[in-house]
Amino acid sequence: MNLRLPGPTPLPLEVCAALARPMINHRGPEFAALLAQITARLQEVFQTQNDVLLLTTSGTGGLESAIVNEFSAGDHIIMAVNGTFGERFAAIAVAYGLAVTRLDFPPGQAAEPAVIAAALQADPAAKALLVTHNETSTGVTNDLAAIAAVVQAARAQGRDDLLLIVDAVSSLGAIDLPTDRWDCDVVVTCAQKAWMTPPGLAMVSVSPRAWRAQAAAKLPRFYFDFARAKSSAEKGATPWTPAISLFYGLQAALDLMAAEGLPAIFARHRRVGQHTRAAIKALGLSLFADEAHASDTVTAVRVPDGIAVKNLLRRLREEHGVILAGGQGAIAEQIFRIGHLGYVTEADIDQAMAAMRTVLG
Amino acid sequence: MNLRLPGPTPLPLEVCAALARPMINHRGPEFAALLAQITARLQEVFQTQNDVLLLTTSGTGGLESAIVNEFSAGDHIIMAVNGTFGERFAAIAVAYGLAVTRLDFPPGQAAEPAVIAAALQADPAAKALLVTHNETSTGVTNDLAAIAAVVQAARAQGRDDLLLIVDAVSSLGAIDLPTDRWDCDVVVTCAQKAWMTPPGLAMVSVSPRAWRAQAAAKLPRFYFDFARAKSSAEKGATPWTPAISLFYGLQAALDLMAAEGLPAIFARHRRVGQHTRAAIKALGLSLFADEAHASDTVTAVRVPDGIAVKNLLRRLREEHGVILAGGQGAIAEQIFRIGHLGYVTEADIDQAMAAMRTVLG
Repeated sequence: MNLRLPGPTPLPLEVCAALARPMINHRGPEFAALLAQITARLQEVFQTQNDVLLLTTSGTGGLESAIVNEFSAGDHIIMAVNGTFGERFAAIAVAYGLAVTRLDFPPGQAAEPAVIAAALQADPAAKALLVTHNETSTGVTNDLAAIAAVVQAARAQGRDDLLLIVDAVSSLGAIDLPTDRWDCDVVVTCAQKAWMTPPGLAMVSVSPRAWRAQAAAKLPRFYFDFARAKSSAEKGATPWTPAISLFYGLQAALDLMAAEGLPAIFARHRRVGQHTRAAIKALGLSLFADEAHASDTVTAVRVPDGIAVKNLLRRLREEHGVILAGGQGAIAEQIFRIGHLGYVTEADIDQAMAAMRTVLG
Repeated sequence: MNLRLPGPTPLPLEVCAALARPMINHRGPEFAALLAQITARLQEVFQTQNDVLLLTTSGTGGLESAIVNEFSAGDHIIMAVNGTFGERFAAIAVAYGLAVTRLDFPPGQAAEPAVIAAALQADPAAKALLVTHNETSTGVTNDLAAIAAVVQAARAQGRDDLLLIVDAVSSLGAIDLPTDRWDCDVVVTCAQKAWMTPPGLAMVSVSPRAWRAQAAAKLPRFYFDFARAKSSAEKGATPWTPAISLFYGLQAALDLMAAEGLPAIFARHRRVGQHTRAAIKALGLSLFADEAHASDTVTAVRVPDGIAVKNLLRRLREEHGVILAGGQGAIAEQIFRIGHLGYVTEADIDQAMAAMRTVLG
């Protein structure tokens, strides 16, 4: 089986073995040591001194945790949307009664920092900019360095408390995201992406600026409360029973990531991303996303004329054991997607492409 | 290691092996089959025709899901509280702005159906009764049959929409809870208790009456939204990426439970509960809870005079590999707790009691 989704991603054998370990007391010394070690390793990959909290939930739960901890009903926020996951983040904010200014960019295109800068200028009451670092639905990596610079410039003009909240679900751990250097306040990722761990854990970094906002934010929250998570973490635990097996898996995956090293991980994803795009073009297929902003973790491909995407994906799965993802939302029938993050090398892409060549005839 | 907590509980080897399986597409046919099979098996154990939803979260998240789906801010509810988990459920309701009438019963005592009946009479605006079936913090099983009869009587007097919401976290799957016969509207449990699966999954049943309330309820919700979960389940998926490994584990555990059969499971827990209480008394120790309402899944024991509970638990752990739970809240120093639910027989209790005898000297 060649699971080439943008999550869940394949598990290294070390992670599978860790998952099978017996239960422990989640309020005992073994779990405290596990939590401390994982947190320290996560801080290295997040490139941050900020708190990194572990929540037993999916990536969407991680995004919801950012909303309910940082805002009060009626708060103004600006949300850059260039795909399904930006839409989802905005939908969560709307569900919680925030006043959301959506900046919509066409699917396949990147968010434009100048448009974001203008929107921030136009609404001095805006408390935060929310952005999807890597839009999984289209395979576009937004220029977070440039977007962060826009936010930093606004802060320098007196908006000290302006928050930068980043959906890094399908980027962090695969694509460079220096949380502290770019002064990102809340950064959300989750286990089943670059982290080579089964789904069920979200990891969220929280800056001092975000903690100040959290203390003032009035949206109702309990399970996702950051303050409870931090106060429990200081005692070596989580406020609610954690997904212990997934902590074991993440620990094993972080060991592998530490052994490979961040620069090598980023370089491998860059290389495999380029390799994937080149292979797609060599097959005569077209890339969906603007290549100037092509993602190193997921590639969206236009479905060739006359081909039904469902049949294509079914044949790849049934005849070749290659699992690709379909499209989402309005472009569901127009594209399919290849995940290349986490436990992946060029050889995995080559096998998938060989199957694709056979199926396309 | 003899993990004798009231959750996480020990994993059978079949469950450990299932956890180690590779990832699959959570939007593909294998996951759809897994979800359908688990849901049908859960309905058998819940003894219900209602929808049973699977949420990637802890038990506390499951309780929060009941609140945010069933109510609007300001709604009146009545909450029977006789321990830490009743307090937690009430705290969630308060965090979401509900008007909570708390009926407090002393720790170690059961909730009194007559007091609940009077409270329901006294507040005709109350939309729901919330109750903890088995109070994990004290080892008391509330008389849910009698409490449900109180609610059914109120419904018969014209309050058709009155909801009965049950925290069955540490009872369901170990203690008889006929959801439909007792007409329970929302019943919440989670994987790491009777279900012999690692933490990270909550399972929640939702009655037609609860669906009507859900459609009218205005509390903000997104990740925990029951309607999204149901609509995705009808397509063989979950709205957000599920904790796939824990689904594998739960499937394996449900196979074991189906092979044993519900009557045998309930009888084993009853037997092991009695065995535990008899063994405690044989050691000269005192039970904390009213024996008339003693739980078949967890036993709280008074700490003998002159003994520091932390030292006792540490010695059991370090010298004998026996892991017991401390007390919680105001009675933290007065009791310790022995879990006997899920994968447990008398032999596990005997080993723990032999260690206890040695440590107590």
